[in-house]
Amino acid sequence: MSRDRFLSDAARVAGWIADYRERLPDLPVLARTEPGATAARLPAAPPEGPQPLEAILADLDAVIVPGLTHWNHPGFFAYFSSSSADPGVFAEFVAAALNVNAILWRTGPAATELEGRMMEWMRRFVGLPEGFHGVIQDTASSASFTALVAARERALPGTRDEGLAATGASARPVVYQSDQAHSSIDKAAVAGGIGLANVRHVPSDGRFRMRPEALEEAIRIDREGGRTPVMVTATIGTTSSTSVDPVEAIADVCAAHGIWLHVDAAYAGPAASLPELRPLFRGWERADSIVLNPHKWMMTPVDCSVLLFRDPEAFRASLALTPEYLRAEEAASNLSDIGLPLGRRFRALKLWFLFRWYGADGLRSILRRHVEMARAFRDWVERDPRFETAAPAPFSTVCFRAVPPEGGGPEDAWNRRLLAAVNARGRVFLSHTVLDGRFTLRLAIGSAWVREEDVTAARSELETVFEDMTTKGADAC
Amino acid sequence: MSRDRFLSDAARVAGWIADYRERLPDLPVLARTEPGATAARLPAAPPEGPQPLEAILADLDAVIVPGLTHWNHPGFFAYFSSSSADPGVFAEFVAAALNVNAILWRTGPAATELEGRMMEWMRRFVGLPEGFHGVIQDTASSASFTALVAARERALPGTRDEGLAATGASARPVVYQSDQAHSSIDKAAVAGGIGLANVRHVPSDGRFRMRPEALEEAIRIDREGGRTPVMVTATIGTTSSTSVDPVEAIADVCAAHGIWLHVDAAYAGPAASLPELRPLFRGWERADSIVLNPHKWMMTPVDCSVLLFRDPEAFRASLALTPEYLRAEEAASNLSDIGLPLGRRFRALKLWFLFRWYGADGLRSILRRHVEMARAFRDWVERDPRFETAAPAPFSTVCFRAVPPEGGGPEDAWNRRLLAAVNARGRVFLSHTVLDGRFTLRLAIGSAWVREEDVTAARSELETVFEDMTTKGADAC
Repeated sequence: MSRDRFLSDAARVAGWIADYRERLPDLPVLARTEPGATAARLPAAPPEGPQPLEAILADLDAVIVPGLTHWNHPGFFAYFSSSSADPGVFAEFVAAALNVNAILWRTGPAATELEGRMMEWMRRFVGLPEGFHGVIQDTASSASFTALVAARERALPGTRDEGLAATGASARPVVYQSDQAHSSIDKAAVAGGIGLANVRHVPSDGRFRMRPEALEEAIRIDREGGRTPVMVTATIGTTSSTSVDPVEAIADVCAAHGIWLHVDAAYAGPAASLPELRPLFRGWERADSIVLNPHKWMMTPVDCSVLLFRDPEAFRASLALTPEYLRAEEAASNLSDIGLPLGRRFRALKLWFLFRWYGADGLRSILRRHVEMARAFRDWVERDPRFETAAPAPFSTVCFRAVPPEGGGPEDAWNRRLLAAVNARGRVFLSHTVLDGRFTLRLAIGSAWVREEDVTAARSELETVFEDMTTKGADAC
Repeated sequence: MSRDRFLSDAARVAGWIADYRERLPDLPVLARTEPGATAARLPAAPPEGPQPLEAILADLDAVIVPGLTHWNHPGFFAYFSSSSADPGVFAEFVAAALNVNAILWRTGPAATELEGRMMEWMRRFVGLPEGFHGVIQDTASSASFTALVAARERALPGTRDEGLAATGASARPVVYQSDQAHSSIDKAAVAGGIGLANVRHVPSDGRFRMRPEALEEAIRIDREGGRTPVMVTATIGTTSSTSVDPVEAIADVCAAHGIWLHVDAAYAGPAASLPELRPLFRGWERADSIVLNPHKWMMTPVDCSVLLFRDPEAFRASLALTPEYLRAEEAASNLSDIGLPLGRRFRALKLWFLFRWYGADGLRSILRRHVEMARAFRDWVERDPRFETAAPAPFSTVCFRAVPPEGGGPEDAWNRRLLAAVNARGRVFLSHTVLDGRFTLRLAIGSAWVREEDVTAARSELETVFEDMTTKGADAC
């Protein structure tokens, strides 16, 4: 492959990306496609002969783009809005070209050490004290699972060797989290052999925050039954409503009982960089492990989840294994000792590019702007009699619902219909949750690409559909 | 961000990559750096203000590249040589720009369906029968872990809910693999709560292949003890010596006992596309699950590991969870139901670009060339009295060792010294293993960038250092 050919191909690909970005605001943000439609347009077998780059890029336009939900669309307000700004996109391009696989320090010394340094930058950025180390994982699911395996070994030493079956049913491990915690913590308990029945979903209060006295009570009952508390997960910014557990009080409970405290700040974590929001994070510095995702609210392409922790040895003791063919001469820490995967992409490059491209101050400005946009939207919801808020909105996500007009039928059905109709229009994409048993709409702001006019569009789409439903009847919309 | 700015930045990054590639053959393939050296050159805190792309790229050259081991270097023959050819590099660039996160079908319909199609292309490419489905995982470690969790639930239904502690010590789960199997299978057993003591490392024969009668015996003993066989892993192309387990006979044992058969073909899998090597894969079509890694011997940037399986429901039953905030209207399969991570990068794009760029026939030609280069190297080892082969070389990896001259001292020490000296010279990078208790050198061919002259260089580096050690004494080298 010649230099000229590479450069001209790269220019062609960059041109495709630039074109895509230009028409992105005009594309429907939520894919307008049926299950199976894209697959039907793809051959069942690979071609035997080579095809030119032009043909591949043409099919990107013809076959793939029409079937995509566009995460970088400025009207993407669903789930947690995430985006890939330029520094991360370029870093991925470079990382793919380098193809460094930092299994061991030796197989990627600079990749290993840059990752360590970026964890330190992240620690400082979010205002955590010294004493935290970190590694990058693909997702919060993997990060929380890794933490759970370390906590499991600490609570039940020897599990690594003997397995959980040796524990016995009466001493079985138990984990705790609020009834608002993310499903990934449940999944981690399933994967780690702890079992869903041994996950205590501690009741939350009226603002969707774990009740520490209920946690204490659950632990007491389990202890009396001979069971083994393994880990408590506190969440700062739950996925459903972005509620904030009382981490300080939960940390007290964990300290009193010697239980591993894991803090899930996958979404909200980067907001700890804002002094005005820092109080929401009180107590998280007492955690044994914390997860926060730059690929959520920090404009980094998926995947980049940061796992911070106090005791690297607890992780190594639970999972590290070094076969002969991976033994190296030098004494250096290997990233793959912490976590399940052995192979490791050069993801630290994304954080390095990101921090330098924007600067810490630039990143804070963007986050602050997102918070302000969310507050403006919330204020509108509170002012408009057709809508009401459904939960506090401490970060950049607003939970709300429509109040059906006289004769509009049940609230849940009205809101489901409203959401489906808004999303079908293609200008914005919102998602939902259920709070207090009631269907609830969510608008999450967090993209590098979001503009004031996009939040205004969300508002006017909601208003338009609401009025249509009122005039024509919900079933007609 | 304007279109012009993006295009000029992209051109700058592409130019950096082209420059890097041009000087790559002249860089030392194994990093010449000490632990801590790169970290010491990186600031302890992120910058407050923004920095230009030029500064970032300049530091890539000044700080990062000197501390890297270069996986795309044509002299990289260590571990399993892997590489990132252009189609995968461009696909990563596009994937990062799209930032699609195919958690659910709805959040990336075309990404979900392209992944399904690519699994079908892969199945056809490697000649597996219909009835296999698949998903992409980050690494074989994760893929094998996912298979183990599914196998665990099949063998011990209810583990998902009750956990392994409810199983009881006497019925504890046990997994089987040869004493040559990859450490990731051990790690999976640790992570999944099965425990290292419950991993049976079945003895291999003189050619490093699992002995099926020893497997049968191990299962019989465990069954008599009331224990629960969960999974047998057979390997086609072990990491240590690329040996091939007798999968057909192992499949018979699994069928007789109703045990999940997992085939680890992470390295060798793509070679099943070559009719002349297909006999080595006999019996793998009877597996419940198979892992093969395009990011190893198929020129795809890390990460891209393909997990193929017969029964998607076994995977969903073991791990799938859908919280309210991820419920969707449409009935479609979600990729995140199979595997631990919820977030999913658009990795299928890499396989689509790869298959189309080269064509199946082009890919086979490259693999065949690697096999031929390895055979030529093996022939040289066999002819040269200073060296000897240490294992059969059925694929593209040769295990060998030097025969110390009269007075050269112990074989192991001589080979260790030889390897360290060859690697220190920077032209090629080889790694080692231990076979039959003896230190063994490995030369693995598998890169898109490898040339005849690089394999010749490996040979002459080995000869030069051997002669130096003979003349000056091993300690002087």
